[in-house]
Amino acid sequence: MTARTLQGFMELLPQEQIVFNRIKSVIAHTYELFGYAPLDTPVLELAEVLLSKSGGETEKQIYEFKKGDTDLAMRFDLTVPLAKYTALYANDLTFPFKRYQIGKVYRGERPQKGRFREFYQCDIDVIDRDELDIVYDAELPAVIYTIFKELNLPSFKIYINNRKLLSGYLEALNIADKTVDVLRLVDKIKKIPEEVFLGELKDLGMPQDKNSQLLNFIKIKGLNKEIIAKLEDLKIENQNFVDGLSELKTVIEKAQAFGVPEQNIQIDLSITRGLDYYTGTVYETFFDDYPQFGSVCSGGRYDNLSSVFSNQKLPGVGISIGLTRLFDQLKDNNLLQFPALTPNKALIITQGAEFDALAAQVAAQLRQNNIAADVMHRSCKFKKKMEYANKIGVPYLIIIGEEEAQSQQYTIKNMTTGEQTRLLPADLIKLLS
Amino acid sequence: MTARTLQGFMELLPQEQIVFNRIKSVIAHTYELFGYAPLDTPVLELAEVLLSKSGGETEKQIYEFKKGDTDLAMRFDLTVPLAKYTALYANDLTFPFKRYQIGKVYRGERPQKGRFREFYQCDIDVIDRDELDIVYDAELPAVIYTIFKELNLPSFKIYINNRKLLSGYLEALNIADKTVDVLRLVDKIKKIPEEVFLGELKDLGMPQDKNSQLLNFIKIKGLNKEIIAKLEDLKIENQNFVDGLSELKTVIEKAQAFGVPEQNIQIDLSITRGLDYYTGTVYETFFDDYPQFGSVCSGGRYDNLSSVFSNQKLPGVGISIGLTRLFDQLKDNNLLQFPALTPNKALIITQGAEFDALAAQVAAQLRQNNIAADVMHRSCKFKKKMEYANKIGVPYLIIIGEEEAQSQQYTIKNMTTGEQTRLLPADLIKLLS
Repeated sequence: MTARTLQGFMELLPQEQIVFNRIKSVIAHTYELFGYAPLDTPVLELAEVLLSKSGGETEKQIYEFKKGDTDLAMRFDLTVPLAKYTALYANDLTFPFKRYQIGKVYRGERPQKGRFREFYQCDIDVIDRDELDIVYDAELPAVIYTIFKELNLPSFKIYINNRKLLSGYLEALNIADKTVDVLRLVDKIKKIPEEVFLGELKDLGMPQDKNSQLLNFIKIKGLNKEIIAKLEDLKIENQNFVDGLSELKTVIEKAQAFGVPEQNIQIDLSITRGLDYYTGTVYETFFDDYPQFGSVCSGGRYDNLSSVFSNQKLPGVGISIGLTRLFDQLKDNNLLQFPALTPNKALIITQGAEFDALAAQVAAQLRQNNIAADVMHRSCKFKKKMEYANKIGVPYLIIIGEEEAQSQQYTIKNMTTGEQTRLLPADLIKLLS
Repeated sequence: MTARTLQGFMELLPQEQIVFNRIKSVIAHTYELFGYAPLDTPVLELAEVLLSKSGGETEKQIYEFKKGDTDLAMRFDLTVPLAKYTALYANDLTFPFKRYQIGKVYRGERPQKGRFREFYQCDIDVIDRDELDIVYDAELPAVIYTIFKELNLPSFKIYINNRKLLSGYLEALNIADKTVDVLRLVDKIKKIPEEVFLGELKDLGMPQDKNSQLLNFIKIKGLNKEIIAKLEDLKIENQNFVDGLSELKTVIEKAQAFGVPEQNIQIDLSITRGLDYYTGTVYETFFDDYPQFGSVCSGGRYDNLSSVFSNQKLPGVGISIGLTRLFDQLKDNNLLQFPALTPNKALIITQGAEFDALAAQVAAQLRQNNIAADVMHRSCKFKKKMEYANKIGVPYLIIIGEEEAQSQQYTIKNMTTGEQTRLLPADLIKLLS
């Protein structure tokens, strides 16, 4: 039997996994710092629950199967499970309900470079009953900004828009019946030439005079306050437009008050999140120098999360980092460093089995001080043990032999600089802390 | 559509999830302290890969399905994926290879109290080429002991045995042909009366005179050194027995040298891990006062992890905590405390939206100091905000109103004691750190 892993399923070597997990834990930790509670829902759900709200695209990609008489499916996102969860436990939850979930989701896409069939999504959402304060729409960019900074990722921008602006604008142009198709088309504008865009608008049956107006609208550029001024200057009185503008203005102001610098947040009227169910604020995030990565973090505001499952109105806003793809892209572009094959800060090797007990003692002392440490056990030559230490890339090596045992001062070698010295256990701990 | 979760799939409320995650992270952190590198393999694998080594029982329980022409299956443990992984990446790994994996596995068992169809396993394994030092068999109990102590779990014992002892003993009795059946039967001895055990031995066609001998053998009791002395006194010369005894002696001695107290590790000659593929050391872990929980942490030594996938000899030793079931049992027996609905150390509420910017500032300062903090946003009466704070069980409440804004001293209330005082931001940080 040949050992094989399915195509489209990421599997990492230990040194890569250590870096992946570090990123994952920075995300989780930051989510918690902002008060989001962890959630963990099943990977498997009833197929009818997962497919209750989905369109045709999702259905084709879903892993669905029967076990006994039950139709089961593997989750393809974390939002539908959240909708189910919130409806199911509404009476036990306290609103505003802030939750994060980091988990694997499954989509049976055609495997291709950069597309995964199993991938991590790292979601945060805030849900309230009846009404959700617009401030939360500004909090999400602040959370994402904090994470990206902490991870030292390349320079990035969170692009932000409000769907009400474009739909209000279309209403004002008296072409509201085309809103769904136009939103979907606008979503593609960065990927197609202008003529194609205009051609497709025409194909939708849009009145020709309004097409260039629309194009000029979504192309409004400038600093955030300039864009807002230009939108205000349009003096459109449509209520949707007015609401969207007021929300967008608040979100930009508050996000900046929450510490997101101007260079990291940018209004972009062409962001619509085409197929999704968002109703207000929408987000996408791009690296300035790596636009080819696509959006690495997207989301938005929805009026009613659990409408399929519940009669309560539960508005929410959420954002999600697609971690597996992001990691893969960062790796491919040499934007990650893989320092070691081991989580250990120090590896202890001995010059003979008679020093094993001492090595175990030293290791235990280090661990009690929260320093990951390991003793290598194998009956082999000392040289082989040195080779192992070099190979796993451990930062510090501790050597215990006759002299060390007698003096209780242990040889410690900085594997990067090659420097070597002898230290008492207490000083070892100080150095390694 | 009714919101429903599948039977046998654990889904927790936020305050429970916070405790679950804390346990999970203590386990992961301790595994890393002992030098185990993280690993994360797919939930889905080729069915033939997962079923390459399994018996009939597993096959009945596995979630298996077709997608296109491919037979897929959800992993039912983390050991088969590890065997695949180690064979597949053997050339990239450095041995001894120490890895941990914490992940969900799937078994379509008949749902019943305490049985889950989706559950977390928390595995550590050490694998080496050709030969694996016996010291690692002693390290695993030390890791588990450290975790259980850190988690403050009820008093427990890691029961330990070596399969070579019983199989050597049966060889010495000239009934080696019955070894598999007898190991399986001995595994059940704690659950059946002695007469039934003897009856079943008889049914196996075991010679009657040897049955009570066997029973007396597996019932040998005492302190670890007493049991070892009694085994030595048997003067059995069978090589398997001699090896097993020597290994067991080493493991007990080293585990104690690694800091596991006598009261937490106990030789028990009736532990065999019946159906599993172990070849030497075997472990089970029971709570002294909750034997009904069954073994909460089991494992053992295997001669050749990847024999199905590879011609290389890759011996290993591993142990696994069944976290989902353990959590469920601890919860059912009121052995867990659920302090809060929120990960926040502090919640900030304001006496009006005009203090929002200040609240955001204070929250940011706390987060920069690694203190989880949240501002509640909702246009509602102050009293409603207080109710929210009480309900989520946040440890500290910070109140910002007119006086606080002027004095830059913020009201902080200890929600447990009810004590209330006013502090400068720096002192807030000190108090909450």
